[in-house]
Amino acid sequence: MNKPVPPQSLRPDPDLPTCDLRRVGAHPDHWYPVAWSRELKRGGTLATAFAGEPIVLVRPRNGPVFALEDRCAHRQVPLSKGTVDGCAVRCCYHGWAYNADGRCTDVPYLGKDRLPNGVRAYPVREVGSLILVFPGDPALADVTPLPGFAALEDPAYKTRKFGRFVRCHYSFMHENLMDMNHQFMHSKQMGQMKPRVLGQKREAGSIEVRYSFSRVGGKQPLGEAVIFGERRGADKALAERDVMTVRTEYPYQTLRISTDGQPAVMDLWICYTPQDKEQRTNRTFGLLSVRRPKVPFVIDLLWPLLVAFTERIFKEDRDIVELEQAAHDSQGCDLNQEVFPVIRSLRGLLAEEGVRLPQPAL
Amino acid sequence: MNKPVPPQSLRPDPDLPTCDLRRVGAHPDHWYPVAWSRELKRGGTLATAFAGEPIVLVRPRNGPVFALEDRCAHRQVPLSKGTVDGCAVRCCYHGWAYNADGRCTDVPYLGKDRLPNGVRAYPVREVGSLILVFPGDPALADVTPLPGFAALEDPAYKTRKFGRFVRCHYSFMHENLMDMNHQFMHSKQMGQMKPRVLGQKREAGSIEVRYSFSRVGGKQPLGEAVIFGERRGADKALAERDVMTVRTEYPYQTLRISTDGQPAVMDLWICYTPQDKEQRTNRTFGLLSVRRPKVPFVIDLLWPLLVAFTERIFKEDRDIVELEQAAHDSQGCDLNQEVFPVIRSLRGLLAEEGVRLPQPAL
Amino acid sequence: MNKPVPPQSLRPDPDLPTCDLRRVGAHPDHWYPVAWSRELKRGGTLATAFAGEPIVLVRPRNGPVFALEDRCAHRQVPLSKGTVDGCAVRCCYHGWAYNADGRCTDVPYLGKDRLPNGVRAYPVREVGSLILVFPGDPALADVTPLPGFAALEDPAYKTRKFGRFVRCHYSFMHENLMDMNHQFMHSKQMGQMKPRVLGQKREAGSIEVRYSFSRVGGKQPLGEAVIFGERRGADKALAERDVMTVRTEYPYQTLRISTDGQPAVMDLWICYTPQDKEQRTNRTFGLLSVRRPKVPFVIDLLWPLLVAFTERIFKEDRDIVELEQAAHDSQGCDLNQEVFPVIRSLRGLLAEEGVRLPQPAL
Repeated sequence: MNKPVPPQSLRPDPDLPTCDLRRVGAHPDHWYPVAWSRELKRGGTLATAFAGEPIVLVRPRNGPVFALEDRCAHRQVPLSKGTVDGCAVRCCYHGWAYNADGRCTDVPYLGKDRLPNGVRAYPVREVGSLILVFPGDPALADVTPLPGFAALEDPAYKTRKFGRFVRCHYSFMHENLMDMNHQFMHSKQMGQMKPRVLGQKREAGSIEVRYSFSRVGGKQPLGEAVIFGERRGADKALAERDVMTVRTEYPYQTLRISTDGQPAVMDLWICYTPQDKEQRTNRTFGLLSVRRPKVPFVIDLLWPLLVAFTERIFKEDRDIVELEQAAHDSQGCDLNQEVFPVIRSLRGLLAEEGVRLPQPAL
Repeated sequence: MNKPVPPQSLRPDPDLPTCDLRRVGAHPDHWYPVAWSRELKRGGTLATAFAGEPIVLVRPRNGPVFALEDRCAHRQVPLSKGTVDGCAVRCCYHGWAYNADGRCTDVPYLGKDRLPNGVRAYPVREVGSLILVFPGDPALADVTPLPGFAALEDPAYKTRKFGRFVRCHYSFMHENLMDMNHQFMHSKQMGQMKPRVLGQKREAGSIEVRYSFSRVGGKQPLGEAVIFGERRGADKALAERDVMTVRTEYPYQTLRISTDGQPAVMDLWICYTPQDKEQRTNRTFGLLSVRRPKVPFVIDLLWPLLVAFTERIFKEDRDIVELEQAAHDSQGCDLNQEVFPVIRSLRGLLAEEGVRLPQPAL
Repeated sequence: MNKPVPPQSLRPDPDLPTCDLRRVGAHPDHWYPVAWSRELKRGGTLATAFAGEPIVLVRPRNGPVFALEDRCAHRQVPLSKGTVDGCAVRCCYHGWAYNADGRCTDVPYLGKDRLPNGVRAYPVREVGSLILVFPGDPALADVTPLPGFAALEDPAYKTRKFGRFVRCHYSFMHENLMDMNHQFMHSKQMGQMKPRVLGQKREAGSIEVRYSFSRVGGKQPLGEAVIFGERRGADKALAERDVMTVRTEYPYQTLRISTDGQPAVMDLWICYTPQDKEQRTNRTFGLLSVRRPKVPFVIDLLWPLLVAFTERIFKEDRDIVELEQAAHDSQGCDLNQEVFPVIRSLRGLLAEEGVRLPQPAL
């Protein structure tokens, strides 16, 4: 038998960071969205997750949402299969009940003086249209700021809420949005746009990059015109005076477009909540706010166009980041050759702010 | 990068047994059902399994069933894909033949004096409507009692044969049936029944618990009335005079309901044969015998109701034990907090009577 | 808890070779087919693979096919998702371009003087109707002979091109075709044929065995008559004067049938290109050439019969070799008891000519 031939692609890249960014966990000491408010009915439960920890959300008929580990202390089956009983959730199997603190308040066949240990409770907040939990050290929840959704509450904006399950590490999402050179991929949807970096800013816990764009080919799409149509002709959208600011304010990301220091015409807030223990999947929660034009109702009429347009863009993005994750799974390490300084800085930020994950079982 | 936050749910429970019951194998030195008699036609073969060992059942046109390792000694393909040839089974690939002892009796292209080793044969019995094999030490087969099916052969009873593939360790099945506090889960089907333990009995190789029930809410279901309708009013079924006896007589389980020492009105025999090597799945074989009421044919008319009723109950049970297995898979160990002494005893019995499994590949 | 009972089937076979043939990789220093020519359009790309290495084939509008590692050097996403741009392929994500040598020739947002490393290029040839790559040491490509397809180009033959994805190690394919005792499996399709070994020849890099056959039962199938119908009666096909020669000329395999030294009536060339890294799957490329009878067009009329006949045969073969692989996966090693000297020789050849694979993750 002969000696194996080492595949050329396994040669290490001398530029690789010493840690593999795709094995860095999202730091749990932040508020993470786990559901949209409308998903959780009064008197209902909802199964969600953060990084492999199953979390049940419970909305009593009277009283605020609470969040518990989604496993009965008894036999570990999901409490989300149970029923809401007053201010408690009761496991479907043997009827054990837990209150908002996770304390076991009733076992139907056991004296109240002999009740067993309960389950973990998570700090929870409901802000705007999102339910957020704090999966880290509960003592830090109150001193950790919630994300702000200024445009969502400003009547000058109309907001689209969107989200999806994406089979990739959250870091691929951050890199995708921040590297506007990937407009190349959307050129069928958006025409050819040439981005120019105006500057970047790295601070503690955040990185920001500003771009201008010039259209080098193709036509402005109708979806984009919904956003920009009021101010300029159809062939002038994203003109050089427009500035796009993409910012990772760990763990969130925002993208704003504005002109000459005026209020943003578009304001996107987005978060990628890890789902499984190895954080190779995320659930994306996005709020896309568009400034209403002066003529009322125009934006409402054109809204379906914007929805369809953004869906096509998001689909292209999801497909490519899932291919990135698949390549990482197959290669077993991160062999990316990054040449764009902004993305190198972003990777440093995500590595510094995250936590080390346990080594994967594979 | 920051230190990881240890998830709260991974703190060990001081009450945990020193072995993980879900990694204890069913002891092979017992008779286990692997198929219903009607599944195996004359002149046919049937692929079955015990704990990851593939077993082929063969029923020659003349002669009793035999059972072999379901792999040809030559190239390891399933003999169950082959054909019955007289009193032998012949592999479909190159035609090697094996008799009931597992001896290789013919290789079409080899002299009779040069025949290779054969395959393992299993002791096999056909009792009532089941085919049982003895997967352990064959020398013990004759001295190991077969399970009895008294009610099956008693014309005073009508018997339903049922079975399904369940994705969980057999121990979850034993615990499910023995812990009648899980009536809580069936309250939509059966109304609210409050169980009371009358006593338990632990002997070598067995454990038995007796319950009485009182109805605290809901209506008696029609399916239950098929069993009890003759003797009392619809709102009095499972009255306090009725005694339910649940017994694990390793490795089998029975459940009987009777009143004042009279013959049982219901008599269930059940066995959970492990299917895969890690025993995280089982095939359930159950015989549910119901005493015929004095008016003949009533039970036959009402039988479809009983079938539908028991199917709904079994589905709820299967769903929950599969969730238990999924929780164990995800947690990697058994974190159950058992408070019911009967189940603690049962777990001790199952651990003592079982065998240690090889450590899982995961 | 009791001691485990070791399953009898895990006793080692003293006859086992010291290496497990199913963990021997196909040697990469040969030309392997990875696609049919018709699969790759002008101006298109095609994703293929060799032993877990993803390979993109690119056919520029003007110029020959080239083959690269199917991962962009930047973010490792498949180049096969990209577009052909002149004589280069451009990644769909950020637009990096690579030429036929794998050199990166353009990053849209980077100066030409700062271009990063490119990707691996594979020697590639297009012969007959196949695209072949050389996955091993490129320096050996030119001195390594391409397979010949004499019958394909000879107008005296009509050729069927067929192929499929098969979930097994390539060695099971070689053994299947070379061991004609497996005619037993096809007896429903072909009747009972008794093979007789006329001789075998083992040389460096090859092994050849010659068979004659006698029909011992059943009728000649129509599909076979397409091949032999011209020369003899329906009940005389594959008569004893016919010689079937099966040859593994590493890594290819051929099967020829001829009579008395005349030109072959049937000539099969086949190759099994490993697909995944552990080589537990292969893509089969076969060319089945049949000598045209003297009456023209008869073969064309009867061709659909031959296609249906061979499809049935191939399906039986694919099913059984996939069962062999499944048995190996389940047993974790090769427990085959081979008694046929020809196959023992073949196994030696395949082990000697192959490469050691990395140990599997499982």
